[in-house]
Amino acid sequence: MKVLITGFDPFGGADINPAYEAVKLLPDQIKDAEIIKMEIPTVFEKEGEILEKGILENKPDIVICVGQAGGRSAVTIEKVAINLIEARIPDNEGRQPLDCPVHDDGENAYFAKLPVKAMVHEIKSHGIPAKISYTAGTFVCNDVMYRLLYMIDKKYPSMRGGFIHVPYLPEQVTDLPDGTPSMSAQMIADALRYAVEAALEYEEDIQAVTGETH
Amino acid sequence: MKVLITGFDPFGGADINPAYEAVKLLPDQIKDAEIIKMEIPTVFEKEGEILEKGILENKPDIVICVGQAGGRSAVTIEKVAINLIEARIPDNEGRQPLDCPVHDDGENAYFAKLPVKAMVHEIKSHGIPAKISYTAGTFVCNDVMYRLLYMIDKKYPSMRGGFIHVPYLPEQVTDLPDGTPSMSAQMIADALRYAVEAALEYEEDIQAVTGETH
Amino acid sequence: MKVLITGFDPFGGADINPAYEAVKLLPDQIKDAEIIKMEIPTVFEKEGEILEKGILENKPDIVICVGQAGGRSAVTIEKVAINLIEARIPDNEGRQPLDCPVHDDGENAYFAKLPVKAMVHEIKSHGIPAKISYTAGTFVCNDVMYRLLYMIDKKYPSMRGGFIHVPYLPEQVTDLPDGTPSMSAQMIADALRYAVEAALEYEEDIQAVTGETH
Amino acid sequence: MKVLITGFDPFGGADINPAYEAVKLLPDQIKDAEIIKMEIPTVFEKEGEILEKGILENKPDIVICVGQAGGRSAVTIEKVAINLIEARIPDNEGRQPLDCPVHDDGENAYFAKLPVKAMVHEIKSHGIPAKISYTAGTFVCNDVMYRLLYMIDKKYPSMRGGFIHVPYLPEQVTDLPDGTPSMSAQMIADALRYAVEAALEYEEDIQAVTGETH
Repeated sequence: MKVLITGFDPFGGADINPAYEAVKLLPDQIKDAEIIKMEIPTVFEKEGEILEKGILENKPDIVICVGQAGGRSAVTIEKVAINLIEARIPDNEGRQPLDCPVHDDGENAYFAKLPVKAMVHEIKSHGIPAKISYTAGTFVCNDVMYRLLYMIDKKYPSMRGGFIHVPYLPEQVTDLPDGTPSMSAQMIADALRYAVEAALEYEEDIQAVTGETH
Repeated sequence: MKVLITGFDPFGGADINPAYEAVKLLPDQIKDAEIIKMEIPTVFEKEGEILEKGILENKPDIVICVGQAGGRSAVTIEKVAINLIEARIPDNEGRQPLDCPVHDDGENAYFAKLPVKAMVHEIKSHGIPAKISYTAGTFVCNDVMYRLLYMIDKKYPSMRGGFIHVPYLPEQVTDLPDGTPSMSAQMIADALRYAVEAALEYEEDIQAVTGETH
Repeated sequence: MKVLITGFDPFGGADINPAYEAVKLLPDQIKDAEIIKMEIPTVFEKEGEILEKGILENKPDIVICVGQAGGRSAVTIEKVAINLIEARIPDNEGRQPLDCPVHDDGENAYFAKLPVKAMVHEIKSHGIPAKISYTAGTFVCNDVMYRLLYMIDKKYPSMRGGFIHVPYLPEQVTDLPDGTPSMSAQMIADALRYAVEAALEYEEDIQAVTGETH
Repeated sequence: MKVLITGFDPFGGADINPAYEAVKLLPDQIKDAEIIKMEIPTVFEKEGEILEKGILENKPDIVICVGQAGGRSAVTIEKVAINLIEARIPDNEGRQPLDCPVHDDGENAYFAKLPVKAMVHEIKSHGIPAKISYTAGTFVCNDVMYRLLYMIDKKYPSMRGGFIHVPYLPEQVTDLPDGTPSMSAQMIADALRYAVEAALEYEEDIQAVTGETH
C-alpha cells in the first residue's frame, strides 16, 4: 500500500510549520506501506490542485493531510470538514476569502474517511496526547480536508483520507503567554506514524473482509 | 565544581513524577562539574532532612531541586520561596499541614540564589519554553525550596541553590482536558542541563571576579 | 413575529443549567416580537420531539435553542450542526449513544439559518464577549440543533433557527480550577436579547426585500 | 471603623481599569464601617506616596488596594508581596524598573494583614469565584501591596491591609482569544463588598477578644 502525507508550508509570518517539520521526520516505510511526503502551499484552492497532482502521480491508498493548530495540546484527528471558508488572516498569496463555500456543488460537510477512534487510541497507547476534533476551522486546513474528501466522494471512491492537526513546536511558543502548549517535532512525527499504523491496520482488516484490493 | 540535583518521587496518586524522570536522564558531568542526582520524598520536613544529608555527603557548590507543576507549559525557574505551608492534598506520609510556617525563625521569604534570568535565557535560546515564576506554591515544592534557602542563609553561605518546576509528561495528560500542556522527559532534561550550564557559567564569572573558590 | 427560545434542563450531575436560567430572564417581548420560552430535556431525540410540539403549537418565525458549553468564555453562536452523536456522558434518561447519525436520511451537516455574524457583532457592540463557533459538539446540543435544522430543511422552510452556547454561571465554577471562565445569568440573558434583536432585524430586512411575510 | 479602598487608573494602553470601575460601585458604608474610595496612579513609588496621604488624611482601620490581573477567572486575595520590582511594561510615567527591591531596608516579603481565607470563603458563599493567590506579580500591584505592608510594619502597626486582584471586565476581552475569562464590574464590586464584610467581622472578633479599639 501507499500512503501520501502532506504538510503545509509556514504561514501567518511564521518561519516554520510543525506540520511539514514532523512529516519530514517520518520513515519512508511504515509496516508494508510506502510513505510519500509532500509539502503543500498555504493557499486556498491551490493546495487542493497540488494535492490532486500528488494523488494522480502516486495513486495512494490513503491520503493524510497535516496542519498546525496553534494552542491545541494534543495531536487531533479531524472528524469532519465543512463547506465553508472564513479566512481570519490572508493565505500565502494574500487572498482572504470570507463566507463562501469550498465547492458550490459539494455536501455541507464530509466526514473523515479514516478510523479516527482507532488512530487516537493507538497514539495515546504510546503515551502521546491525542484527541478527536470536530472542527478543522475555516482556514486552509479545513479547505484542503474538504477538497480531499470531495475528491474521494466524486472521483476516487476507493481511496481513504483525512486530516490531522498538530500543536505548536516548542520553539514557536517560547515568547507566547504561559500555558500555551507545544509538542516536539519528533513526538509529533511519532504520533503521525502511530496514526498511519492504525489506518493501515484498519485498511488491511477491511480488505481481508471484503477481498477488496487496489 | 559539584551540582546536586534532586527530584521528588510520585505523589497525589500518580505513578511517575516528571521531576525525577528528567533528573535521571541528565549526564553525570556538565561542563567541568560533577552532577549528583538524588530522589527525595514528597513528605514535608523529611525532604529537607534528606536533602541536608545529601549536602553534607557531597558538599555541592550548587543545589537545584526539581518538582512537577502540572498545568504549566514551560520549565519555570522559581524566584522566591515563602515561609508558609498550605497543603491542598496530603503528602506521601498522609500529613496535610495548613497555614503554618516552614521555619518559625526564618525570613518571610527567600529569593533563589541562582541566576534565574540567565537560566531562562539559556533554555529559551535552545528553543525550549522557559519562564521565571514568582510562586512555587505552598506544598512540598515551596517547602523544600524554602528549607534549602534557609540552610544556605543560616549554615552554608557559600553554596548556591534554588528550585525548578517542570510541566507534566505527555503520558500524564492523555486523559486530561484538551489544552493541558506537557513536555517530554528528554526535553525537560535538556532544559535542566542548559539551566545548570548557565548556573555554572555564572558561578565561574563570580569566582573569576572575586577570586573566591570553595 | 414570534421567537421560540429553548434552554436545556440541568445534566451531568449539575443543579442548574445556565441555558434555561438565562432564558427565564428574557422579557416576553423583544422589539415587536413575542418571546416564547421553553425548557427542554437533556435527552437525545426527545428534546427534538418536544421542540417540534412547541413549534406546532406556537408557529414561531425564529427558533433559537440554548445550551451550556462549560469552559467557553464567550456566548457562542453555532454555525453548523453535524449528523453525528458521540455521547461522552449519559443523557438524563441514562442513554449514551455512540458513533451514530442523528437522522439516517439527513445531510452530513446543516448550517445555522440565522445571521450569526450580525448576532455576534450586536452582542459584542454591547461589551459582552461573543464569538462564532464551528462545533456544537456531539452531545444533545448538537443533536437538537441538527434536529431543528433538519425540520426546517424538510418541513418548515420559511422558519429560521439555530443554536447558542453559553458559558458556565459563576456559581458553577467556584470550586473548579483557576482560569475556568464564567458569565452571570443576567449578562447571558442580555446577550441572548441582543442576539434575538439582530435576528429580528435581519428577518425584517429580508421581508422588506422579498415582500415575504408568514 | 473606616475602610480605605483604592483602585488603579488604566494602564498598558487600556481605557479602563476594572479595579477602580468596581471600587466606584461600592456603597459608602458596609456594615457599620465608612468606605473611602481612592483612585491611585499606575506609577511605581508615587502610588505608595498617594496611598500614604490617603492613610494620613483618613486614618483607616483597614486598607485594601485593588488591581487588575488580566487572565485570572476569579477575584483573588493576595497572600504575599515580595521585595522585588520587574516591570514587564513601562508604568504610566514611562519608567520600567528591573530587578530592584521596593524598599532597600524591607523584609524579603510581607504577608497580607487580612483574613484571606475568610474573605475567599465569604465571596464564594455568594456564588462568586474567588481564590487565594500567592503571587501579586512584580509590577505596580505587588509594589503598592508591598509598600502598604511595609508601612503597616514600620509605622502603622494597628492598621490592617492587603491587596485584591480582579479579572478583566467583559468589554475588555471581546477581541481577545476565546477562553479569556472576565467578570462584570457589578459582580467584582459585590465580591469586594463581601471581602470587606469578612475583614470587618474578623476585626470585630479580634477587638472583642483583645478589648483593643482604635
